[in-house]
Amino acid sequence: MTTASVCTIGDEILIGQIVDTNSSAIARALGRIGVQVTRMVSIGDRREDILDTLSRELKLADIVITTGGLGPTKDDITKAALAELSGSHAYVEHPGQLEMVYEILHSRGLDVLDINRAQALVPETCEVIVNHRGTAPIMVFRMGKATLYAMPGVPFETEAALPDVLDDISAHYPLSAISHRHLMTYGMAESALSKAIAPWEDALPADMHLAYLPNPLTGVKLRLSVYGGNPDETAARLDREVARLKALLGDVIYAEGERSLEEELGRVLADNGKTLSVAESCTGGEIAHLITGVPGSSRYFLGSVTSYAIPVKEKVLGVPDTIIRDKGVVSAEVAEAMAEGVLRLTGSDYAVATTGLAGPGGDGVYPDGTVWVAVCSKTDKKSRLFQYHNDRKRNIQRFSASALYFLLTFVNSELSR
Amino acid sequence: MTTASVCTIGDEILIGQIVDTNSSAIARALGRIGVQVTRMVSIGDRREDILDTLSRELKLADIVITTGGLGPTKDDITKAALAELSGSHAYVEHPGQLEMVYEILHSRGLDVLDINRAQALVPETCEVIVNHRGTAPIMVFRMGKATLYAMPGVPFETEAALPDVLDDISAHYPLSAISHRHLMTYGMAESALSKAIAPWEDALPADMHLAYLPNPLTGVKLRLSVYGGNPDETAARLDREVARLKALLGDVIYAEGERSLEEELGRVLADNGKTLSVAESCTGGEIAHLITGVPGSSRYFLGSVTSYAIPVKEKVLGVPDTIIRDKGVVSAEVAEAMAEGVLRLTGSDYAVATTGLAGPGGDGVYPDGTVWVAVCSKTDKKSRLFQYHNDRKRNIQRFSASALYFLLTFVNSELSR
Repeated sequence: MTTASVCTIGDEILIGQIVDTNSSAIARALGRIGVQVTRMVSIGDRREDILDTLSRELKLADIVITTGGLGPTKDDITKAALAELSGSHAYVEHPGQLEMVYEILHSRGLDVLDINRAQALVPETCEVIVNHRGTAPIMVFRMGKATLYAMPGVPFETEAALPDVLDDISAHYPLSAISHRHLMTYGMAESALSKAIAPWEDALPADMHLAYLPNPLTGVKLRLSVYGGNPDETAARLDREVARLKALLGDVIYAEGERSLEEELGRVLADNGKTLSVAESCTGGEIAHLITGVPGSSRYFLGSVTSYAIPVKEKVLGVPDTIIRDKGVVSAEVAEAMAEGVLRLTGSDYAVATTGLAGPGGDGVYPDGTVWVAVCSKTDKKSRLFQYHNDRKRNIQRFSASALYFLLTFVNSELSR
Repeated sequence: MTTASVCTIGDEILIGQIVDTNSSAIARALGRIGVQVTRMVSIGDRREDILDTLSRELKLADIVITTGGLGPTKDDITKAALAELSGSHAYVEHPGQLEMVYEILHSRGLDVLDINRAQALVPETCEVIVNHRGTAPIMVFRMGKATLYAMPGVPFETEAALPDVLDDISAHYPLSAISHRHLMTYGMAESALSKAIAPWEDALPADMHLAYLPNPLTGVKLRLSVYGGNPDETAARLDREVARLKALLGDVIYAEGERSLEEELGRVLADNGKTLSVAESCTGGEIAHLITGVPGSSRYFLGSVTSYAIPVKEKVLGVPDTIIRDKGVVSAEVAEAMAEGVLRLTGSDYAVATTGLAGPGGDGVYPDGTVWVAVCSKTDKKSRLFQYHNDRKRNIQRFSASALYFLLTFVNSELSR
């Protein structure tokens, strides 16, 4: 198997000022084309450290990908170190990248200074992949059987350039074709899921591999992969296994393909021309925030009310004070009245509401981590209790994910009637 | 200066399944006691990789901190590798950790199996720092002048055990006393800030160091540090410099101490017994989410309305349709009417509202990245235009931070009248 080492260069990572998200993004992308990351290293902007580390990593892995240290200021020295490492005697200007430097700076209303123009200069020993999102080009150094790719450190630029880097790797290394199917699940822990599908998993063909990719807050992503083989045949075989798995897990699988709960919910609502509103208490705006994070959400999302204080629940959402007094603020009845209130207020087709305790504090009845979620349409309503044991921020995230999942299954069942 | 290398062990990091947040948390903590992290390395759960990497890192740094690979299942092999590396011939049971194993499992209603009990077994060559949040102890290997600390990989356990590890480091390495002051700024880029305070910074005493810790979305944190010296004298000298800096920067500094905009806003409102409500359009619930992420926010936050659709702006918030028609949805007038609407609806002392374009799409008048923010009290109102050039998610975050800052300065100026 082709192996890779991912090296991030920059003092800001070593002092803990920023969390390195590039390495995991690169590792996931490499995994998808069948390249295995065996090491990740972070070092500072010091010449000897860069030279020592990169020469060692080039011996240990087939591919070395660096990020960072390519900025125009003098503390960024990766390019000079790579020139030295590759035995370059001169810099050459790359016309394609120079054009991008002008385009990017002009679009920001800035003049192009010498320091900017120098970004398009690269050691004569490298090839260039043009960076369309930033001024520093991606440099490709072919060093015997190993290749070094130097990428910028800005995550948005790294991400945009990754497909080109993957193409270059695919063109130069003997990778098996790899086919994937992703299934998004919610509501079952990894261990329970694994137990539930064990007979199916054990009977999988030897060349088919199942990976569990759990996110403790938003559910487990399942990835079914086949390396090699005829792509059409493989696709048909994967389809068959996916159908079996869906029959086994039912509603636990909420989507095929890599898609969040809010994205899948948005797709269903938009495809069916339906609208949504939200009433939040303990989730404090997080559900609306997740929904509106999806581009195009204005097609189906009308609005939300965060009724943190009791008078807002009564006055804005019309929750009867008798229900609050008799059942308590954290109750199925209040959640349902909130959902119906915001549905009435906005005229949406569906609504979801939360009332619970994110903590710390408790209400003397329920423990922290308790939430009542209600969903409703113009003709039906449902409510359900969820309980978690996390800190405030995680409880809010889990409450929100539970509410989105509960709503999605409700909408799907209403639409399939 | 004492140096450290941070090594994370675990396949889940190398396949990009999780983002490593432990390393940056450890680096920040070490920085605070004056230890410099020079390298970070991630490797998989393979014996040779662990042995090779750790023996090398122990030569390069004074302190090596590992996280991960200490679980009870057979894929976790860090403990066995450390026994081998340190020349241990036997495992011994640590009574304090064994007690924690029983306590933790019983509190979850679980029986203690052999596999759990084995968690309290450690190589005879190490000392133990008890892990109070999990079953795997922190192991301390003193290897000549270098020390290796093996910590668990669960962030919540690592974080809880860090103070004990820092104490041990402080007891065994000659670290200077270190004093810090943090100042939170908003609204000036690092370069502009640096230019504005250059004369003051240049005149700082030689033993006083200023660090810029920028977060592109929420502002630049300034850290003023002194290593060594008499603590009382140092404190007085730091106070003097902080006072000078505050005089220079005025409102740009929104808080002393490490505190987010929403935390500082909450503190001011709670201290003065004032309440707040929010009306959001393009920020879609993010402002309410940030405010309610602060424990105790129910003391001052009454609620919010996310009026994504125009009829919700009109019907719920009472924004006159004539204003929307004449001025456009993205306008100072609509932002102000939204703020006044939610203030009236909830009866709060203050309100903030946003209307803008997070993108993609644009409205033909303003470009994506434009937001009008309005703030109001019962007697006054103000509005301001902000423009950014990010993608949807970042625009939403920057809009929200701008709104919180604008609101905070408004509240402060009202309260100081």
